[in-house]
Amino acid sequence: MASMKKLINDVNDVVKDSLVGFEAAHDDLVRVDHENKVVFRKDAPVKGKVGIISGGGSGHEPLHGGFVGLGMLDAACAGEVFTSPVPDQMLVATKGVDSGRGVLHIVKNYTGDVMNFEMAAELAQAEGIDVQAVVVDDDVAVEDSTWTAGRRGVGLTVLLEKLVGAAAEEGQDLDALVALAKKIIAEGRSMGMALTGCTVPAAGKPSFDLADDEIEVGIGIHGEPGRERRKIGTAAEVAEMLVKPILADLDYAGSDVICFVNGMGATPLIELFIVYAEVAKLLAGANVHVVRDLVGNYITSLDMAGCSVTLLKADEDLLRLWDAPVVTPGLRWGK
Amino acid sequence: MASMKKLINDVNDVVKDSLVGFEAAHDDLVRVDHENKVVFRKDAPVKGKVGIISGGGSGHEPLHGGFVGLGMLDAACAGEVFTSPVPDQMLVATKGVDSGRGVLHIVKNYTGDVMNFEMAAELAQAEGIDVQAVVVDDDVAVEDSTWTAGRRGVGLTVLLEKLVGAAAEEGQDLDALVALAKKIIAEGRSMGMALTGCTVPAAGKPSFDLADDEIEVGIGIHGEPGRERRKIGTAAEVAEMLVKPILADLDYAGSDVICFVNGMGATPLIELFIVYAEVAKLLAGANVHVVRDLVGNYITSLDMAGCSVTLLKADEDLLRLWDAPVVTPGLRWGK
Repeated sequence: MASMKKLINDVNDVVKDSLVGFEAAHDDLVRVDHENKVVFRKDAPVKGKVGIISGGGSGHEPLHGGFVGLGMLDAACAGEVFTSPVPDQMLVATKGVDSGRGVLHIVKNYTGDVMNFEMAAELAQAEGIDVQAVVVDDDVAVEDSTWTAGRRGVGLTVLLEKLVGAAAEEGQDLDALVALAKKIIAEGRSMGMALTGCTVPAAGKPSFDLADDEIEVGIGIHGEPGRERRKIGTAAEVAEMLVKPILADLDYAGSDVICFVNGMGATPLIELFIVYAEVAKLLAGANVHVVRDLVGNYITSLDMAGCSVTLLKADEDLLRLWDAPVVTPGLRWGK
Repeated sequence: MASMKKLINDVNDVVKDSLVGFEAAHDDLVRVDHENKVVFRKDAPVKGKVGIISGGGSGHEPLHGGFVGLGMLDAACAGEVFTSPVPDQMLVATKGVDSGRGVLHIVKNYTGDVMNFEMAAELAQAEGIDVQAVVVDDDVAVEDSTWTAGRRGVGLTVLLEKLVGAAAEEGQDLDALVALAKKIIAEGRSMGMALTGCTVPAAGKPSFDLADDEIEVGIGIHGEPGRERRKIGTAAEVAEMLVKPILADLDYAGSDVICFVNGMGATPLIELFIVYAEVAKLLAGANVHVVRDLVGNYITSLDMAGCSVTLLKADEDLLRLWDAPVVTPGLRWGK
């Protein structure tokens, strides 16, 4: 254990111990079902509101548990590190947030997550709960990956949870929320890169090694291989490696967009803002209009250094939802 | 440059480039005087309010620029990485936030910062502005350090900026704010540790090297040496290494406290919450009552991995200020 330098007690207790601290730090907003590793909004189920849940492997904090609260998620299921939660957890979450108007599952496109959320939806439907699911697959880097059939779900998940969460808070019904989520998925794209690998506690060593002058372009959020390994360049060059493939994949020219520059966990803010400045410059040059932005560490990969860029087309409807109040552990002043 | 793996353009432009991105990302809340490297609250000077400014070397983001906004700072001066801003910057900031009720300088106790803020205060006073300063020196690790006569100013600075900022927003006068700040400084203590060094861009290599199984206990926020180098232990053991010296330095038994567990920049949230759980357990065992908390990366050391603990005695007055609204780049949903 010593050789991997982590602030943990035991490699087998990382998620369990972290949820204890998370709940203690934010118990005015959330409660945690520790047996099932589900983070609930404290007032769930919220009367008259569609329940919104998500979840996935741990190691991406603040996603998803940090986004449980007013204006975002009603519950989040925490799997072990980089491992899908099981259907039983998702069923507990679904039942715990249902107030009679149905429940939406927000699923990142990884084989295990998709399969388990499908099973949980069937179990919940069998108990009479109206469940629908949407699958986020915004990563333009690769068509299929280690853990995915089709594109991976990455940064867009954060924006989708915020926007759909705000719409649910407004009282929109399940069908409307599904349509909104599908529109967001259709109009959002991401691309990431890594300066270093990340170390899963149970593995004890980095997911991959990069030479001192190498970066991995097109990385996923679990250290999956990307498109290519390259020599490191300036922040301007890195920004171009991320923005170009996104613009090649979907035509954003002339559009208003929300721009999200995300840190992978170990990248300091001082660097993320340098990247954001370059991304903004490139977008302006491509006639893409940034009308809202988010810059910080929101969907991480443990201790990986690196960043990703996400673009989403924005209309007035989305901007109203973007600007709506949100109070979650990951997005507020301390308790 | 390649060998140090940073998302930057040029080692000489790190602060300049980062401020461009910072302003673009948050231009609804702040404006940046790029020539003087000062971040201003967009509506500064705020009429009828004492101006609150701080500043210091860059590399600790979100501190200080990320805390400029409603309920916290009116301006922040950004020095080069780990280098004090100069008096001219502080004078520009002071003049820019003065609305006639005076200006408070919040200074972390480093020789350069203290000297330069003193000079700036004299220059501002010569122009007829009422300036007072408070010096934060909360680090119990060492009595004097590489860059300090007396104790270093670390984590307590974040809490002080929040609490004094809230009091200024309430309309309290300069003398009352100074008294409040002094009370906070008298009743707050911190202690930190590092798993790794950090790399100043212009230096190009880590500030120090630790063996794979070593940690530095009592670290400052610039990679200054701490109390001792030890074998890494469990999160529970690390929590004890931080909490015990704090409790030995000031008697918190029976008190209500605000507890702040801060990440040094490269430590993921999943680990910080494990540390917080252990800290909370130790405090409960020592009859110290945590009534508010803050857990996250708020005063960082570039890409250093590690954490610090800060305790502050809390009364009803402080809790009202703690709970008051705050809207700053470092503490809100994206623009």
